[in-house]
Amino acid sequence: MLNIVLYGCNGAMGRETGSLIFEEKDVCVCAGVDGMIKKDQTAMPYMNYPVFKSLYEIDSCIIDKADVIIDFSTAQAADSLLDFVEKKHIPLVMCTTGLKSRQLKKVEDISLSSPILRSANMSLGINLLTKLVAEAAKTLYDSGFDIEIIEKHHRRKLDAPSGTALLLADSIDAELNNRLGYIYDRSGRHEPRHNDEIGISSVRGGGIVGEHEVIFAGMDEVVSIKHTAFSRRIFAQGALKAAIFLLSKSNGLYSMNDVINSSYNV
Amino acid sequence: MLNIVLYGCNGAMGRETGSLIFEEKDVCVCAGVDGMIKKDQTAMPYMNYPVFKSLYEIDSCIIDKADVIIDFSTAQAADSLLDFVEKKHIPLVMCTTGLKSRQLKKVEDISLSSPILRSANMSLGINLLTKLVAEAAKTLYDSGFDIEIIEKHHRRKLDAPSGTALLLADSIDAELNNRLGYIYDRSGRHEPRHNDEIGISSVRGGGIVGEHEVIFAGMDEVVSIKHTAFSRRIFAQGALKAAIFLLSKSNGLYSMNDVINSSYNV
Amino acid sequence: MLNIVLYGCNGAMGRETGSLIFEEKDVCVCAGVDGMIKKDQTAMPYMNYPVFKSLYEIDSCIIDKADVIIDFSTAQAADSLLDFVEKKHIPLVMCTTGLKSRQLKKVEDISLSSPILRSANMSLGINLLTKLVAEAAKTLYDSGFDIEIIEKHHRRKLDAPSGTALLLADSIDAELNNRLGYIYDRSGRHEPRHNDEIGISSVRGGGIVGEHEVIFAGMDEVVSIKHTAFSRRIFAQGALKAAIFLLSKSNGLYSMNDVINSSYNV
Amino acid sequence: MLNIVLYGCNGAMGRETGSLIFEEKDVCVCAGVDGMIKKDQTAMPYMNYPVFKSLYEIDSCIIDKADVIIDFSTAQAADSLLDFVEKKHIPLVMCTTGLKSRQLKKVEDISLSSPILRSANMSLGINLLTKLVAEAAKTLYDSGFDIEIIEKHHRRKLDAPSGTALLLADSIDAELNNRLGYIYDRSGRHEPRHNDEIGISSVRGGGIVGEHEVIFAGMDEVVSIKHTAFSRRIFAQGALKAAIFLLSKSNGLYSMNDVINSSYNV
Repeated sequence: MLNIVLYGCNGAMGRETGSLIFEEKDVCVCAGVDGMIKKDQTAMPYMNYPVFKSLYEIDSCIIDKADVIIDFSTAQAADSLLDFVEKKHIPLVMCTTGLKSRQLKKVEDISLSSPILRSANMSLGINLLTKLVAEAAKTLYDSGFDIEIIEKHHRRKLDAPSGTALLLADSIDAELNNRLGYIYDRSGRHEPRHNDEIGISSVRGGGIVGEHEVIFAGMDEVVSIKHTAFSRRIFAQGALKAAIFLLSKSNGLYSMNDVINSSYNV
Repeated sequence: MLNIVLYGCNGAMGRETGSLIFEEKDVCVCAGVDGMIKKDQTAMPYMNYPVFKSLYEIDSCIIDKADVIIDFSTAQAADSLLDFVEKKHIPLVMCTTGLKSRQLKKVEDISLSSPILRSANMSLGINLLTKLVAEAAKTLYDSGFDIEIIEKHHRRKLDAPSGTALLLADSIDAELNNRLGYIYDRSGRHEPRHNDEIGISSVRGGGIVGEHEVIFAGMDEVVSIKHTAFSRRIFAQGALKAAIFLLSKSNGLYSMNDVINSSYNV
Repeated sequence: MLNIVLYGCNGAMGRETGSLIFEEKDVCVCAGVDGMIKKDQTAMPYMNYPVFKSLYEIDSCIIDKADVIIDFSTAQAADSLLDFVEKKHIPLVMCTTGLKSRQLKKVEDISLSSPILRSANMSLGINLLTKLVAEAAKTLYDSGFDIEIIEKHHRRKLDAPSGTALLLADSIDAELNNRLGYIYDRSGRHEPRHNDEIGISSVRGGGIVGEHEVIFAGMDEVVSIKHTAFSRRIFAQGALKAAIFLLSKSNGLYSMNDVINSSYNV
Repeated sequence: MLNIVLYGCNGAMGRETGSLIFEEKDVCVCAGVDGMIKKDQTAMPYMNYPVFKSLYEIDSCIIDKADVIIDFSTAQAADSLLDFVEKKHIPLVMCTTGLKSRQLKKVEDISLSSPILRSANMSLGINLLTKLVAEAAKTLYDSGFDIEIIEKHHRRKLDAPSGTALLLADSIDAELNNRLGYIYDRSGRHEPRHNDEIGISSVRGGGIVGEHEVIFAGMDEVVSIKHTAFSRRIFAQGALKAAIFLLSKSNGLYSMNDVINSSYNV
């Protein structure tokens, strides 16, 4: 039985992850932590595990058997988490985004004495895409292919482009030695397309969960690589996969690409 | 045998149309007209017909048998064309874009005494799309569906969005009583999508001839209507179809939608 | 307040519809009916309304205020339902599929004295598609466009092609005077495509809820019309929309296309 | 200046390649060979180079400066070509398909003393796809993703599925240790999808040049990798790219994947 501490258990992704773990065999949440939780919420049906307001409040008999912490909290709650991991040396899957550079540095430091996996997007599919689009760019860009990204999300999404679209663009740009600039609007221009740009288009409408397509357009052929999410459950699944991966790892900083690569050698 | 005068025969679309007519049975170019043509070009292989610098230079024995004029020239050359049609009453398929309002008025006036068909896009498929997307919008918009357009073109295209994307958006907006505004860039905003907008995204790359997709995104379903062009030959084909349509028509101003509707009654 | 009797309330679509109505304003389930229900299920959280084993067991004070019946039961349960409607003259939205011809005749007969709406697919989007693809076929088929359908569903779906793919094909074929045959497999053939066929391809994989795409392929352009379902909630929404539509209708047999057309005149 | 002998210069791909080379700088066809050619064809406009009926008829002053042979002929013409290469040790790009196993063995033998590149599909994009889909399958298949292929071609194509669809399926299957069977028709079955199959759907219509899409469908996300060809020029371009690649290579047998990989190290 794999015992998981779920940090940020009352947020949308925390609940999704708790609910996924509940359905899986040989894995359970031994403790949930959420600073925003009220006493009378701890017995809510989607939380069939003991819930605490901080990591330090967890009973020692529980924390002693904890195998890994999965974190879907916020940047504000990260410092407390990292301090705890530094003391207790429990493997950590860190899914929180928006960390400050100071915090990122702390993650690196602590990973010297504890295995940590951090990723801006936990989906297996999206992480595979970051690899595939970089590989495609390596082959196609110097043969004159133009690179464009289209992302689609629901009407309530506030930011554009999506963080994942930028993650994909960055993965391509890094592969091409940071030669490219990102273009979000062509309506004001009156000129041919430039070689050194990635156009990123954001479509918003209805209940679209999330689509990302990277297009490599040549003069006589087009290659496109696309990811469609049906539900945010994929992020919970990625986190659980990462937790299992981390169990057998020594100290160090890992990414979802390490999880993907490890499946090659099974 | 259908005898066609090809006006603007030396431009890209003029050549495409001449080449298409050459392959078709029971139809021929009896005369080409192009102000930009040099004497020694008139015998070029893609022009297997007599070419003249103006409509008035065409031999009367040729003009007397002309059944229809197809115009792929420019707004500058339109006045001379319209004057000629006013005198000779030859049916006219007018594919030139960018006409001034004064010229559009002239077209209307002359159509009282001569059958004229004018269209901003000659493709059968695109003209069908303007009808389908309006019909879809009528059904879906008031049920809360959001409308977005994605258009893709080759890297050399100067303007964005494409004229055809705007044609589609205008067709939808007219159906909905002009309630909608067009949005070309969401990267600077930080807010949910509004109901009263159509997002239009422009993708540019490689040799893409032309793609237009209209997306109707509801909370739990998406309808999308898409047109892909393989070559600009579709515009020549539409012009020829329009010419044949015009032969049996009385005086008046027609559009490609009339051509489409007429096929219903065959 | 619109009072709905939900017939077949314990099936997958019955629960979905009950749950949708619970979230909507000005509409409620005044009674649920399900022959398969056990006494101790009637108080289950997703059924916040009184549940009965048959229509005749509903209290008369409840049935007297019922405005419409929505039926998501089975062909076996249809006779009892139709008999009840014949006596009580309550408007009926009938979403059950697989009715025998005898039952279909009965539906027609009873609709002479009671408003009935019956449809093989309740989704607003799919019903719009049946209209759009017929219209596109009318314009494009005689211009030489080939028609193909691709449908995609989850890995557990037993039948292929989907009933909705056949609904779309039938809509096209009826428009073209039943000239077309359906082809499900080209791997055994070694010949060019014929004019008088619709190819229907079935893709199965993962958790795909349902996608249907109709492709009109010309020599130089392609028009495609596509529907993507995110959840079966769209069928519940269509049923509710149909119920509201039926309230103001006189006796007669209606379809979802009548609902769609009615929105044109709002 | 790169001097190319074009073997099979009068076939569709031979002409396409000749026409491409004519437009490129620093490369030319020094001799064309085609057994099917008539004397009076050798001066045709699309053949601006000397043409011979066999390799042995080429003037020695021409063959001495030949850098590479590009072969777009037929399996029947392959033996004569291979014999010639064995004697003259000119690097060979072999694009002919349908070779017998005896001939494939001969290619291997001769490659010990002469650099030879052979590929079933010369397109840069398609060869990239064979790599990407194998990589995606390696990551996704054991996580429960189902693999499906859709290929689309013009109405005149005789065989189904396309050779390229099978090439992609084989690339996936080899990566997964040949565990999968291919399914071309689900209409006769009435059962859930199996894990150990790849469904391959063939769409035929109009003038579609060629589309191949590989779909990896998980329970909550889908990854799809797609190639669209605009013209068969991509095969000529691949052949030319292969010819340039081969110039700097020592004896041995190469594939288009070697060309792709080589671009990584530029």
